[in-house]
Amino acid sequence: MFYYIKRFMSPMTVVENVEAPSERAAACSKTELLEHYLTVRRFSEELCRTLEPEDYVIQTMPEMSPTKWHLAHTSWFFETFIIKPYLRDYRPLHPQYAFLFNSYYNAVGKMHARPQRGLISRPTVKDTYAYRQHVDAAMEKILETADGGLLKMLTPLIVLGLNHEQQHQELMLTDLKHMFWMNPLRPAFRTEVSAAQHPTPSSGWRRYDEGLYSIGFEGDGFSFDNETPRHQVFLAAFSLGNQLVTNREFLAFIEDKGYRRPELWLSLGWTAVNERGWNAPLYWEQLDGTWWMMTLAGMRPVRWDEPVCHLSYFEADAYARWAGARLPTEAEWEVAANNAPIEGQFAESGRFHPSPPPQSAASDCLKQMFGELWQWTQSSYAPYPGYQPQPGALGEYNGKFMCNQYVLRGASCATPHSHVRRTYRNFFPPDARWQFMGLRLAKDIA
Amino acid sequence: MFYYIKRFMSPMTVVENVEAPSERAAACSKTELLEHYLTVRRFSEELCRTLEPEDYVIQTMPEMSPTKWHLAHTSWFFETFIIKPYLRDYRPLHPQYAFLFNSYYNAVGKMHARPQRGLISRPTVKDTYAYRQHVDAAMEKILETADGGLLKMLTPLIVLGLNHEQQHQELMLTDLKHMFWMNPLRPAFRTEVSAAQHPTPSSGWRRYDEGLYSIGFEGDGFSFDNETPRHQVFLAAFSLGNQLVTNREFLAFIEDKGYRRPELWLSLGWTAVNERGWNAPLYWEQLDGTWWMMTLAGMRPVRWDEPVCHLSYFEADAYARWAGARLPTEAEWEVAANNAPIEGQFAESGRFHPSPPPQSAASDCLKQMFGELWQWTQSSYAPYPGYQPQPGALGEYNGKFMCNQYVLRGASCATPHSHVRRTYRNFFPPDARWQFMGLRLAKDIA
Amino acid sequence: MFYYIKRFMSPMTVVENVEAPSERAAACSKTELLEHYLTVRRFSEELCRTLEPEDYVIQTMPEMSPTKWHLAHTSWFFETFIIKPYLRDYRPLHPQYAFLFNSYYNAVGKMHARPQRGLISRPTVKDTYAYRQHVDAAMEKILETADGGLLKMLTPLIVLGLNHEQQHQELMLTDLKHMFWMNPLRPAFRTEVSAAQHPTPSSGWRRYDEGLYSIGFEGDGFSFDNETPRHQVFLAAFSLGNQLVTNREFLAFIEDKGYRRPELWLSLGWTAVNERGWNAPLYWEQLDGTWWMMTLAGMRPVRWDEPVCHLSYFEADAYARWAGARLPTEAEWEVAANNAPIEGQFAESGRFHPSPPPQSAASDCLKQMFGELWQWTQSSYAPYPGYQPQPGALGEYNGKFMCNQYVLRGASCATPHSHVRRTYRNFFPPDARWQFMGLRLAKDIA
Amino acid sequence: MFYYIKRFMSPMTVVENVEAPSERAAACSKTELLEHYLTVRRFSEELCRTLEPEDYVIQTMPEMSPTKWHLAHTSWFFETFIIKPYLRDYRPLHPQYAFLFNSYYNAVGKMHARPQRGLISRPTVKDTYAYRQHVDAAMEKILETADGGLLKMLTPLIVLGLNHEQQHQELMLTDLKHMFWMNPLRPAFRTEVSAAQHPTPSSGWRRYDEGLYSIGFEGDGFSFDNETPRHQVFLAAFSLGNQLVTNREFLAFIEDKGYRRPELWLSLGWTAVNERGWNAPLYWEQLDGTWWMMTLAGMRPVRWDEPVCHLSYFEADAYARWAGARLPTEAEWEVAANNAPIEGQFAESGRFHPSPPPQSAASDCLKQMFGELWQWTQSSYAPYPGYQPQPGALGEYNGKFMCNQYVLRGASCATPHSHVRRTYRNFFPPDARWQFMGLRLAKDIA
Repeated sequence: MFYYIKRFMSPMTVVENVEAPSERAAACSKTELLEHYLTVRRFSEELCRTLEPEDYVIQTMPEMSPTKWHLAHTSWFFETFIIKPYLRDYRPLHPQYAFLFNSYYNAVGKMHARPQRGLISRPTVKDTYAYRQHVDAAMEKILETADGGLLKMLTPLIVLGLNHEQQHQELMLTDLKHMFWMNPLRPAFRTEVSAAQHPTPSSGWRRYDEGLYSIGFEGDGFSFDNETPRHQVFLAAFSLGNQLVTNREFLAFIEDKGYRRPELWLSLGWTAVNERGWNAPLYWEQLDGTWWMMTLAGMRPVRWDEPVCHLSYFEADAYARWAGARLPTEAEWEVAANNAPIEGQFAESGRFHPSPPPQSAASDCLKQMFGELWQWTQSSYAPYPGYQPQPGALGEYNGKFMCNQYVLRGASCATPHSHVRRTYRNFFPPDARWQFMGLRLAKDIA
Repeated sequence: MFYYIKRFMSPMTVVENVEAPSERAAACSKTELLEHYLTVRRFSEELCRTLEPEDYVIQTMPEMSPTKWHLAHTSWFFETFIIKPYLRDYRPLHPQYAFLFNSYYNAVGKMHARPQRGLISRPTVKDTYAYRQHVDAAMEKILETADGGLLKMLTPLIVLGLNHEQQHQELMLTDLKHMFWMNPLRPAFRTEVSAAQHPTPSSGWRRYDEGLYSIGFEGDGFSFDNETPRHQVFLAAFSLGNQLVTNREFLAFIEDKGYRRPELWLSLGWTAVNERGWNAPLYWEQLDGTWWMMTLAGMRPVRWDEPVCHLSYFEADAYARWAGARLPTEAEWEVAANNAPIEGQFAESGRFHPSPPPQSAASDCLKQMFGELWQWTQSSYAPYPGYQPQPGALGEYNGKFMCNQYVLRGASCATPHSHVRRTYRNFFPPDARWQFMGLRLAKDIA
Repeated sequence: MFYYIKRFMSPMTVVENVEAPSERAAACSKTELLEHYLTVRRFSEELCRTLEPEDYVIQTMPEMSPTKWHLAHTSWFFETFIIKPYLRDYRPLHPQYAFLFNSYYNAVGKMHARPQRGLISRPTVKDTYAYRQHVDAAMEKILETADGGLLKMLTPLIVLGLNHEQQHQELMLTDLKHMFWMNPLRPAFRTEVSAAQHPTPSSGWRRYDEGLYSIGFEGDGFSFDNETPRHQVFLAAFSLGNQLVTNREFLAFIEDKGYRRPELWLSLGWTAVNERGWNAPLYWEQLDGTWWMMTLAGMRPVRWDEPVCHLSYFEADAYARWAGARLPTEAEWEVAANNAPIEGQFAESGRFHPSPPPQSAASDCLKQMFGELWQWTQSSYAPYPGYQPQPGALGEYNGKFMCNQYVLRGASCATPHSHVRRTYRNFFPPDARWQFMGLRLAKDIA
Repeated sequence: MFYYIKRFMSPMTVVENVEAPSERAAACSKTELLEHYLTVRRFSEELCRTLEPEDYVIQTMPEMSPTKWHLAHTSWFFETFIIKPYLRDYRPLHPQYAFLFNSYYNAVGKMHARPQRGLISRPTVKDTYAYRQHVDAAMEKILETADGGLLKMLTPLIVLGLNHEQQHQELMLTDLKHMFWMNPLRPAFRTEVSAAQHPTPSSGWRRYDEGLYSIGFEGDGFSFDNETPRHQVFLAAFSLGNQLVTNREFLAFIEDKGYRRPELWLSLGWTAVNERGWNAPLYWEQLDGTWWMMTLAGMRPVRWDEPVCHLSYFEADAYARWAGARLPTEAEWEVAANNAPIEGQFAESGRFHPSPPPQSAASDCLKQMFGELWQWTQSSYAPYPGYQPQPGALGEYNGKFMCNQYVLRGASCATPHSHVRRTYRNFFPPDARWQFMGLRLAKDIA
């Protein structure tokens, strides 16, 4: 199944020995595209299989959305950008879904207020699945009837829509985690898929030389516009931590009063610490002297060998300062990632929780670059030199968010595998903690 | 079915020809009490029969609660005040329900934060009904096994619990109305139960003489503590409007720029008008020059002969000032109500919307005192002289809310019939609008 | 000097042996009126004599106003309601003062936003005094030139304006106290005027019989419209504490965990306690185990024999409940006050702090009814039966505030003596604490 | 007078023909340093010469500070970092000034809450000047008695303190502008110093080649730590607008509905536009069809040839997008600035308002790089590669603010001339508008 996904969505994972990209795209049959479409769409629904209807409805903070909204909004995306413009005689299921399920695309019309997504019980979950089927049927019809020219035009839009849906698959998981945590009963989303637990190997550093490097996406496969254009950057020599910071390491920061020492914090971070009473990562809780944490499998004690997770940029930055290091820039991260395999634990594992790093012989073997956790960089989310957003409404997809956010690299245990790319730029405000976010250290070489 | 309810809950409705109250209470068999209990409990569930699971979950403002919370909290009331103290070996269904479903009783423990009632998907609707059954089974067991002494002690608590549940039946309806209105799709809770529509007869005034009157509850039947003790008040002569103010009359206020003229408003009311952009009663909306309104049967044009509904105290007060009149005091209202029959449209009608007043021969025939709408009085909600709250945790039921609220009298189309009493004191803050609230005018006699 | 003030402003203080009121008013010469006017106006300025220019400017919370605003607004009152309508060819000093110094009179035009009064440095203090002189000159001109008819019409307006200014004299003092307290340096407004300190005599109760009483103002002297009309009320028998509750008594409440026991509090009061962290009266502070308090003479230890001050309604009510008593109604208070002399410590003493009660032989001798502290009653601020606000813009003076406020009776150490009346109704929201507010207990007689 | 200031504070302005920097520093006599100290200190007071005492007190938004706070805080800086550590037997004037006038240095103790700086009338203006004299006397004493070793150690601290005071000189002016604007009377701070008004020459573009460049400060003169270390950056070819965008040009944006078109805005910017009702730059106001603006000389019509001022980053960015261009990066700006003379209109002119660009022959002559207005760049404020903050408390000066702020380059009409440097990095949050902020366009060369 992932063959097709990889083919469409993550060209860099198979970059070595394939035919020329333009050939590949041409060779892609309607059948393959449809199969790919259905695979991604089904995965969204598969993620929900343990949910009760009530679980789909709730919004526990403005930044998150109810599951049924995610399921509907991803369908709205196909309906708005593909079906309505290209399927003759299409009849929308409901005249107001265009309003209810638009997220932030001003160019296509008004939208329901984001913080009110949890205030509407109707359409119900059943209605929402019916909407998905309605959209899927229309997409199948388009693909069946499209000639070569139309297909060529639609393929990038469909692939964008599928990548969009994959982003929401990850958000569904992180949003549900927040919702279950806000419930004093702390329900489990899934029973735990156990992972091999073994002692974390000691961390080491890997050196990179000063030089002019190129970063950013280039090629025929899919990427978001914010990964382009590929361009040159000058980097001074640096070292990168070879694995993610662990819970054990972060506990030392806590016990060294890291959350009480202003000199370790950015000014806005210090304000956040005090106003919100932060004293540990999100989802940690101290009960009778033991640290517990909320997972998608419910509450359980913190395991010290796992990578530390659910940190804000502020906490990642303060930890790095405390450790005598710093966060990497996104260019440093990408340069290092160029030689790393895209492997790790992704959403398909069903575990939805990060694992300790594998054992390895060399102390500078670069590990955990993908899967497990998104990794904060010190880079503000900004346009690459020469960046041009997509034209039209889809130009609102990325560019307009390039302010007061920070870039995270890699991918997490909630990211679908085929969604991952070395040039991928994830981004969140510096106080966000509810994604699967961790950190890897960097330092200058004097 | 309502025979028993009346018997326990609303003695004044059958006050003329019954045996002495103490006799009645003694004569009440376990069977009758249990049947009464089950009748009230079933009515709560009956009200929900058209709901989808998603409809039970949502909280659209801090003042309202999700339907499943109402269903659980009313069960918690019996569990907390009757079952746990009096049923040996009772095992609660879940250790945290005591926390989740306590509303505001500090004396019995901590509670979930009120504005977060809509953030918990679990317990689900199914779980909630299971909780109700668990509680009902325990209550049945208590009633089966109670001897005469215990029964005598428990009866007032059970009757209080049932009155409490009836209050929540009304709140379920008004809260659902708010929730469906907040949804841009404006779903209907029920299809409309049509009511005879006929022109509203002209309103008139009914005079009452100056004098020393007694108000407040006295007798053997049930009342809340806030209706006691019965006490004397001196009233100057006054007139009372013989029917509720209608939509037609209120429209004249709107069209006379009532919402734009500060001299008509209390200072806090004027602030509310401007900060919240009020320009009509809650649930009214002007579309292409026509006034529509949200009802529990969905959106439809305003019918001008119906009583005006969903007004705040501020709007009721401003209207009265504009009309050259004033709101009645609660004592005036109660004195007038002493001779009025407790009849009108109540929750059992299933219509959940107020009706125009009946035709009548005399222009001063007092109409619509009960059912249809709660009626704002100008009286601040305060303790009666000599008031003593119930001892213990149940003392928190009423007394602690006697601040910054205003008394409403009568009953509404969402009040269960057997819940109504002439001495009943309903109360809400002066900016509340989501209950079935209307007004009746009063004026001084020079 | 106070002869004239009394004559105009506080008829009940000299009610025993004067000529008939209508005679008095007629006999009042222009000279007397002008002298009276100047006396009150000068007292406002006299209160400011120790202030630096910077002290006049600041607003430390929305409810208080900068001193220079008080000085200007009281002048605006005369300018707006007397000079502009009645002085031909009057030229305002500045075209925007009418906007800047209107407080809340919608009928006379727009106004500067209340919470922004502390954001304007100009007009300066010097400019403000020039404005006062400009207004005073115009007032003198009016009084010089007015014939008998005009004088008769203007006298009540002038007297109202002077009472208005006296209210602001008290507010200037309480607002300055708040401002100096918000300054970590805790500056003193005045050096302390020492008062005889002697042990507080034991408190006792004074009984009053059930009956029909009359309350409210009637007669020729001045009163605010909210004190009228005089009307009958029926009161059950009650007892009134013969003196104000002391700091010593209130400390017992604190030490008995009064601020931590929800059962003692109104629900809104309990919210206030927790959200604002109240654990003692406003201006109290515990330093190294000793309670200190801010006064207008700076910080000093709490003196236990003084009456407890700067309590909200919520605290007064909670204390009364803890003490097994309740707050009096305003009718009860007024009935008791009818036989009490209007004596005590007022603003003219320059002490601006309440004193312990005098020694007395009888344990039920009613003390401290006037001066010292305003006394919370349990009565919501509401219109008296038959109440009619003044016509026109001045109707906004009192009536529109009759919502969510509670009545205080008596007068305080910051009230000008001639401003006091037995029927006077002061009012504040139940969470207000910055006025000189205390309490006297009441209880039912079984 | 500016000779000495230049010598200490702005080495790059005289970079061509001076002796080696280390020599210069050594040659600097105590006398020169003291004279320099006094010159800067006097300039702060000189700026205040037209203020009334009331003008020094007010804080009109949390981001600005009262003038007397600025005057005291800059003195506190010398007292805290130089006098207390190095002057034996120094006696502070007041024990709590250390608390009141600490801005944000957690390492040296607690501080008064920033939004409450306008709530304290004492110390008065007179007290504040006395505090300045007290500090100046201590500084003179230190300089008189310091031996060579101490002097060498203190000189960088003193120069830092003087640069710090110069920053506050600019803030005093922009904060006063905000304060006078918040006053409905719109007082003038100074009468206008007229500037030659002449038509703005047409704007042009100046090209820069792709390449590896060095930016950042290096040398012996003063710089802030955030300007270091000097480091290499790779830049693609770009063009820079040769002058600042004018009011005329910005009006075209307004009239093309720039403030109503979401596609032109960053998402956070669009939120700001709507929530705050922005429809023109700060201080613009449309009266009867004419655009007026507030200046430090009061209200007057907008002059179209002047550079547009008081724009947020959001507005600058939206304008650039509308104009088919973009904002420059700070590296681009600095590369261009390397050849530009540090000339323009600075605070010493006393005009405090930006002027139109001078006429010039060549259309690509780079103008208005310094003075007039700070220029938004698209660069997030971030540490340079290898950045090390100063050790100790002074490390809090810059580094901890490197989050969610954007860099502005150049200098404004309110910046003291000697304070300017080509490598200077000013920074403000993207919604800030009250500084003298404008923009210059940039674009890619395809």
